[in-house]
Amino acid sequence: MDMHELTRELQIKNKTKIVMLVGDGLGGLPMTPDGKTELEAAETPNMDALAAKGVQGLSIPVKPGIAPGSGPGHLGLFGYDPLKYQIGRGALEATGIGFEMQPGDVAIRCNFCTLDADGNIADRRAGRIPTEESAPLAISLRQIQIPGIEVFVEPVKEHRFVVVFRGPGLGGNVRDTDPQATGVPPLEPEAVDEGSRKTADVARQFLIQAREILKDETKANFHTMRGFAARPDLPSYEEVYGLKAAAIAVYPMYKGLARLVGMDIVGEATSLDEQMQVLKENWESYDFFFIHFKYTDSTGEDGNYAEKVKRRVQLDACIPAITELGPDVLIVTGDHSTPAYLKSHSWHPVPTLLVSDCCRPDPHTSFGESQAITGGLGQFEAQYLMLLALSNAGRMGKYGA
Amino acid sequence: MDMHELTRELQIKNKTKIVMLVGDGLGGLPMTPDGKTELEAAETPNMDALAAKGVQGLSIPVKPGIAPGSGPGHLGLFGYDPLKYQIGRGALEATGIGFEMQPGDVAIRCNFCTLDADGNIADRRAGRIPTEESAPLAISLRQIQIPGIEVFVEPVKEHRFVVVFRGPGLGGNVRDTDPQATGVPPLEPEAVDEGSRKTADVARQFLIQAREILKDETKANFHTMRGFAARPDLPSYEEVYGLKAAAIAVYPMYKGLARLVGMDIVGEATSLDEQMQVLKENWESYDFFFIHFKYTDSTGEDGNYAEKVKRRVQLDACIPAITELGPDVLIVTGDHSTPAYLKSHSWHPVPTLLVSDCCRPDPHTSFGESQAITGGLGQFEAQYLMLLALSNAGRMGKYGA
Repeated sequence: MDMHELTRELQIKNKTKIVMLVGDGLGGLPMTPDGKTELEAAETPNMDALAAKGVQGLSIPVKPGIAPGSGPGHLGLFGYDPLKYQIGRGALEATGIGFEMQPGDVAIRCNFCTLDADGNIADRRAGRIPTEESAPLAISLRQIQIPGIEVFVEPVKEHRFVVVFRGPGLGGNVRDTDPQATGVPPLEPEAVDEGSRKTADVARQFLIQAREILKDETKANFHTMRGFAARPDLPSYEEVYGLKAAAIAVYPMYKGLARLVGMDIVGEATSLDEQMQVLKENWESYDFFFIHFKYTDSTGEDGNYAEKVKRRVQLDACIPAITELGPDVLIVTGDHSTPAYLKSHSWHPVPTLLVSDCCRPDPHTSFGESQAITGGLGQFEAQYLMLLALSNAGRMGKYGA
Repeated sequence: MDMHELTRELQIKNKTKIVMLVGDGLGGLPMTPDGKTELEAAETPNMDALAAKGVQGLSIPVKPGIAPGSGPGHLGLFGYDPLKYQIGRGALEATGIGFEMQPGDVAIRCNFCTLDADGNIADRRAGRIPTEESAPLAISLRQIQIPGIEVFVEPVKEHRFVVVFRGPGLGGNVRDTDPQATGVPPLEPEAVDEGSRKTADVARQFLIQAREILKDETKANFHTMRGFAARPDLPSYEEVYGLKAAAIAVYPMYKGLARLVGMDIVGEATSLDEQMQVLKENWESYDFFFIHFKYTDSTGEDGNYAEKVKRRVQLDACIPAITELGPDVLIVTGDHSTPAYLKSHSWHPVPTLLVSDCCRPDPHTSFGESQAITGGLGQFEAQYLMLLALSNAGRMGKYGA
C-alpha cells in the first residue's frame, strides 16, 4: 500500500511546526578500520544536546545496499517511495532553475560543445565557457521553431542549459546524444520506447536548427542533449500530508526537488546563515520547513575528510537558530551517506535524529553512526520518516477503528 | 519492485571477489534460559577477528516468524525473494543429483516402498533398501513409455529416486501419493489445479507400469511419488548481478539450488578442507563463491547441542583458508537457524557478518546472536544481503540521478 493513501485519510491539521534539516550525504565512514566517521569526529555540541532529548536511528534511503542519487534520496525523505517515483535529470535540472514543468513536458539537460572541422567533438563542455558568454548563445536558440511544439530554452551555468519541449504525445525516454568521448560526432537522439518517438523527432529537428544557428560560433558551435525526462507526477505535500511546506535551499537541484512535491521555494539564501534568516522570516507562514545543506556531501565527494568534518561542525552551529523558534518536531538527517573514503554517494544508512515532546527518547547523548545503530528509531526506510514527523506533530489520526 | 530490476541496471563489473560462507542452520538458541546459543558457546577466534573488522547483524530468512526450508532459505541469501520464487522438493532433488531440468519439466521425488498382499503399504521406505539394490530397480523403470512424454528415471540413494516428465502442458501441482502411513494403499496422484491435470494423468500411467514392472520384487514392489515440482524460472547470477559464480558444496541439494540460479558447481569436495582446496583452485576463475557447510544444521536437527557447538568451531577453522586468498567481501551467514533445542529449522534471525574495506564497522569484537542484535547491519531480510555484497564490492552503481 502506498503510504500516501493513509496520510491522505489520517492527516490532521494543527498549528505545529516541523523542521527537517537535511545535511546532504550526512553519513560517512572511518578512513581507517579503528577510526571515526566524519560525524563522530566532528564536535557537534548542539546535535548532541538534541540527541540527549530526542531519539535517533539509521535511515535506509531506498533499500539495504542501494546508494541513491539526490533524486531518490530526497524523495525518500519526503515520504515518496523512491522505487515508485522516479525523476530524470532533465526534470530535476529544469525544476531546479525555477522552470515550472507542466504535466507532459519533457526536459533535457544540454551541454554546449565544440565541434572540429570534421564535425567531431573537440571539447564536450566547450572549454567550460563562462556563463556570460554561454547565456546569450542559449537565448539565441529560442528562435528555434518546431511545428506543434512549444520550445523553452533556459541558460543554466557555464556550458549548461536546459531545453523543455511542450506538446501532446511526448515521452521522456530518449537516449543521450553525448557520446562521452571526443574525436567522434555527437549521437542522434534515439527513442527508447514507442511513446518517445515523437520526442526523439522533435529533438532531431531542434539539433538541426541549433547547428545552423551556432555554426559560426568559435567557442561553442554545437551542443549535446542528456537526461531526457518527463515531469514526474508527484502528489503535493499539501494534498498528501495537509502541510503548507517551504524549502530553504541554496542549490537549484534541491529547490527543484522540493518544488516537484509542491513546496514553496522561499528566500534567496546563499549560505546557511542566510537560510536561518529566511527560516525566521517565514516561520509564521508555513507548517513544514525543508532546509538543505549541500557541503556535507560535496566535501565527501571530494574525498576531503577534514573538510567534511568541518562542514558537520558548521551544520551543528545552525541548530540554535532553529531551536529558538520552537519547532514542535525537529529532524536532522541526510538523503544518503557520502563517505570521504569512497568519494561518492553510498548505501550506508544515514544517522537520523528526531526531537519532539513525545518522541520516546533513547539513552544516547551524542549523535553519530555508532550511536544511531542502537538508537530508538532503529533502522528504517527513509520513506517512513514523514509518517514519524507527522505523528510526532500530532498531525496523524489513528488508523482503523 | 523486484530488486533484480535494479541490479540488472546498476551492476558494475570489476575484479573483486565475494565469498559467501553459509553455515546451514547457523543460528541457535540457548538450551536453558541463562545459557548461550551454540554459536556463542563455540570458540570461534577467527570469526571474532572478522567481527572486529566487519559489521554484523541479523538476517531474517523470509519474514519475521517464518521458518524456511532449505530452498527459500538459500533463495533469500542468493537475493531471490523467497515468497516470489518457489522451488518444489522434486525440482531441488533432481537438480541436486546433477539432472539439468529444462523449463516445463516436472520432477518428482519417489520412494520405493513395500506393499503387502492386499496392496497396502507395509514399509514406506522398503526397509531403506541399499543403493546397490535400489539403483537397478530404478533403472528398470526407464522402460516405461508414455505417449508424447519423455520420461527420465534417476536413482538417488537407498529407497529414493527421481522421475522427471518432459513434454508440453505439464504443471507441477500434484498431490503426493505417499499416505504417510502403513496399512493403507498408496494414494492416486491428484492435480491441485487445472494446469496440472495432464501431469497427474501421466503420473497415473507411470504408476500402473511401475507396479507391473516391480510386482515380483520382494523388497520394493512399488513406489510412492512426492514433491511434484516444475522447474522454477530463476534468472541467473550472471544476468542479474553480472557475477560469474561458483558453488562449493558437498550435498546434492545445495548444489542443486546453486545450479538453479546459474552457479557453476565446482569440485567434488567431500569435506570442508577439500572445499577450501577447491576454493583456492578456482579462485581466479570466478567472481563469487558460495560455500555450503551442512553440519551446523544436521547436528541441530538431531538436537545435539554439544556436537552443534563443535561444528561451529569446525566452520570457524576454515576462515583463514578464505582470508588468505584476500576476498574483497567476505560474508558468514546461514540460511536459517536450527536450534538444537527445537531440533528443527526455526524462524529466528541468523547472525550474519560482512567484512569489506568499506563496511562501516560496528563496535563488536565477537560474533554471535547477542552481538548481532546490536550490530551495524541491524535486522534485515536475507534477500537484501546480495545488494550489500555487491555494493561493498563496488559492483553497484548509484540509483537515480
